[in-house]
Amino acid sequence: MNVLIVHAHHEPRSFNAAMKSLAADLLRGQGHEVVVSDLYAQGFNPVATANDFATRADAEYLVYALEQRHSHGQGTLAADIQVELDRIKWADLIIFNFPIYWFGMPAIMKGWIDRVFVSGYCYGGKRIYDRGGLKGKKAMLCISLGGQRHMFGPGAVHGELATLLQPIQRGMLAYVGLEVLPPFVAYHVPYISEAERRDYLEQYRQHLLGLHQLPALEFPSLDDFDDALRPRNAL
Amino acid sequence: MNVLIVHAHHEPRSFNAAMKSLAADLLRGQGHEVVVSDLYAQGFNPVATANDFATRADAEYLVYALEQRHSHGQGTLAADIQVELDRIKWADLIIFNFPIYWFGMPAIMKGWIDRVFVSGYCYGGKRIYDRGGLKGKKAMLCISLGGQRHMFGPGAVHGELATLLQPIQRGMLAYVGLEVLPPFVAYHVPYISEAERRDYLEQYRQHLLGLHQLPALEFPSLDDFDDALRPRNAL
Repeated sequence: MNVLIVHAHHEPRSFNAAMKSLAADLLRGQGHEVVVSDLYAQGFNPVATANDFATRADAEYLVYALEQRHSHGQGTLAADIQVELDRIKWADLIIFNFPIYWFGMPAIMKGWIDRVFVSGYCYGGKRIYDRGGLKGKKAMLCISLGGQRHMFGPGAVHGELATLLQPIQRGMLAYVGLEVLPPFVAYHVPYISEAERRDYLEQYRQHLLGLHQLPALEFPSLDDFDDALRPRNAL
Repeated sequence: MNVLIVHAHHEPRSFNAAMKSLAADLLRGQGHEVVVSDLYAQGFNPVATANDFATRADAEYLVYALEQRHSHGQGTLAADIQVELDRIKWADLIIFNFPIYWFGMPAIMKGWIDRVFVSGYCYGGKRIYDRGGLKGKKAMLCISLGGQRHMFGPGAVHGELATLLQPIQRGMLAYVGLEVLPPFVAYHVPYISEAERRDYLEQYRQHLLGLHQLPALEFPSLDDFDDALRPRNAL
């Protein structure tokens, strides 16, 4: 397998960095190829602007997704976007490794999605979900949380983790056709002991060793929707 | 009222920009004070780094939220963060005006949350939800979507809009104690006619005129959770 790890943490000695390194080492040890997009180390620019396009379909009025499609077709995407898009094309599995900030990705990673999940390649028109442009590839979240395990679930103070992750797992990953493997989640990370960190790393190692057996999460199939994307069998 | 509009769109002639200007003009016309944080125009930096803190609680190992708390106490937050935090302190109502990108905020606005919702002021420890640091202030989303109205809802292809917005409305806004007013949502915006745009702007005008009558959304009350944030009456 070709594995891309997209990593977003500003502290090289962080637990997130340790999870990133563990995955890279373990997967390389299994004979896989691994590339890491270390967004902080790269100084990745997360802000989508007109500068992302060397040529324009409409130079007067910026509709970002339409210009993505145009520039992808022309081969005129900004160089830093093209590098990351080529990594996506190369990868069989993409691991997103990050701390949850405000129930979502840190801005530097959200901007990687905004700029690199290029319309015209990753999705477009009805090429979404199980007809998405990245169909055949897999993805997985590896995340840390400040909150404790009992703060997530039905009736818990922060609600269900699956709901919190739905915009990412469904709205970003499944949307472009990626098969989404179950996430690895480490709770309460800023506050746990060294022994608990080691225990979490061992759990992550087991998660990765069993990766090929993990059943993918379930998301919509366009087979269940008509040409206007209305449900074929409305409830 | 003092109203802060946080606006994130790179196209000055966009529909989002028109909604921002309509709100500013209408609210000023009603005698309110309005300040706009135009994130693209300001060149706002959305990436949380060690540079955000002129002094450090721990110079060797960066835990962002702990350094926020420290630097807020010392008055040594980066100048661009302090400007935005002062606007939050000043505001009675914050309107977040943006296009939905990938089921969430554009990275430039997500980074405004990451950097400006400062631990030690906006929240901290158990000062969250109805005990959050911004209690007494209100917030509202004004968003545009590429998808059509029938693509959101129970059984719809993209799921329920409330679920899509939960990480923002609950995880960011209600979390810091903001009273969250019902969002204004414009669908299918890149593809609609000029007449439909005018119709949406009129709907937004009515939404704003009725703002003081809109019932706030409901979120957890810490009264229902114990000191460890476990539900007092588990289901």
